[in-house]
Amino acid sequence: MTKLPGKTIERLSQYRRSLLVCVENGKDYIFSHELAELHHITPVQVRRDLMLLAYSSVYRKGYPVRQLIEAIGTKLESPEGQNVAIMGMGNLGSALSQYLASVRPKLKVVAGFDVDSSKSGKIISGVKCHALSELKSIIDSENISIGIMTVPQSAAIEACELLCKAGIKGILNFTHVSLTVPDNVFLEEYDMITSLEKVAYFVKQSEE
Amino acid sequence: MTKLPGKTIERLSQYRRSLLVCVENGKDYIFSHELAELHHITPVQVRRDLMLLAYSSVYRKGYPVRQLIEAIGTKLESPEGQNVAIMGMGNLGSALSQYLASVRPKLKVVAGFDVDSSKSGKIISGVKCHALSELKSIIDSENISIGIMTVPQSAAIEACELLCKAGIKGILNFTHVSLTVPDNVFLEEYDMITSLEKVAYFVKQSEE
Repeated sequence: MTKLPGKTIERLSQYRRSLLVCVENGKDYIFSHELAELHHITPVQVRRDLMLLAYSSVYRKGYPVRQLIEAIGTKLESPEGQNVAIMGMGNLGSALSQYLASVRPKLKVVAGFDVDSSKSGKIISGVKCHALSELKSIIDSENISIGIMTVPQSAAIEACELLCKAGIKGILNFTHVSLTVPDNVFLEEYDMITSLEKVAYFVKQSEE
Repeated sequence: MTKLPGKTIERLSQYRRSLLVCVENGKDYIFSHELAELHHITPVQVRRDLMLLAYSSVYRKGYPVRQLIEAIGTKLESPEGQNVAIMGMGNLGSALSQYLASVRPKLKVVAGFDVDSSKSGKIISGVKCHALSELKSIIDSENISIGIMTVPQSAAIEACELLCKAGIKGILNFTHVSLTVPDNVFLEEYDMITSLEKVAYFVKQSEE
């Protein structure tokens, strides 16, 4: 299968979120211009993205919402789902594990890891926490392919190396250290301090 | 003052994070190629960004780290600092308020708001929580210009409208609803589910 660009994947993920809201509201069909408006993009962009799913709209009705949700799922997810580990079960790590538990059934947080050995064996925010020494064996036994990093800055590089060595295939990095990973690992990084500083800068500018 | 592009602001914020680590490690000067390597960009990009701060490197020594940190601070922040409110003091909101407390002294989380009235008046993760009915008066009295949104999806649009009406100037939206704000409000959005789904997609692709 051809690999879609990251930006397309992001949009498909976001369309699905809106489509799930449609289902909740009892809406069975949606037009490309409606989806476009919800996401502040053009209808052409929406239609182009949905063509990748081999879907076109029904004349005067739009796209069938439920089928679209399914088609996006088939594109984005593997049928058996994927397992996720959280590295660093502090405040942010446990908040994320709780937040993620409810949102995507095919992405399951199945283990947490923390350097603090007093957390080992405990259930934190619904997830069992393990010692770092167990990383490799748990990743194998639980078939975990994705790691979310919420460790402190000082531990980021080491935690990333441990995850890669343990055979993780994708990392979502929430620490504010820019990481380097081997070619066979997919890395996505988000630094909330940078986002907040950006907002602060533009607010400051608007006040000057 | 000319307004810098968002991407430049993001890089300056990230350079500063690395420079603060340099200070901790007793490193007084840094070359553009070192900063470039840390952030996976070209030295030319680094030099171009730092020229905006009216800084150039010292021959054979590089850039003076502490002065650079100060210059970035002057560019990004207002001298008196900016106050931040968190809208939605659930798991994510309280984790963020704790996380942010330690990181940027010029960006201070001074209030939390939650629809759950049993939280009113309580200190959650170091931040006093208020009822939504107090929003406008607290934003005025505490001089809050930035709002971080961590409410549930169903409350996102209303919470955003309340913040804008209360006079907030910038919003960092962590809900997965794409929002619309008036022209005088700066909006930055981040959806962690989308990031995670992106990682999952590329991991799935690598396994096929």
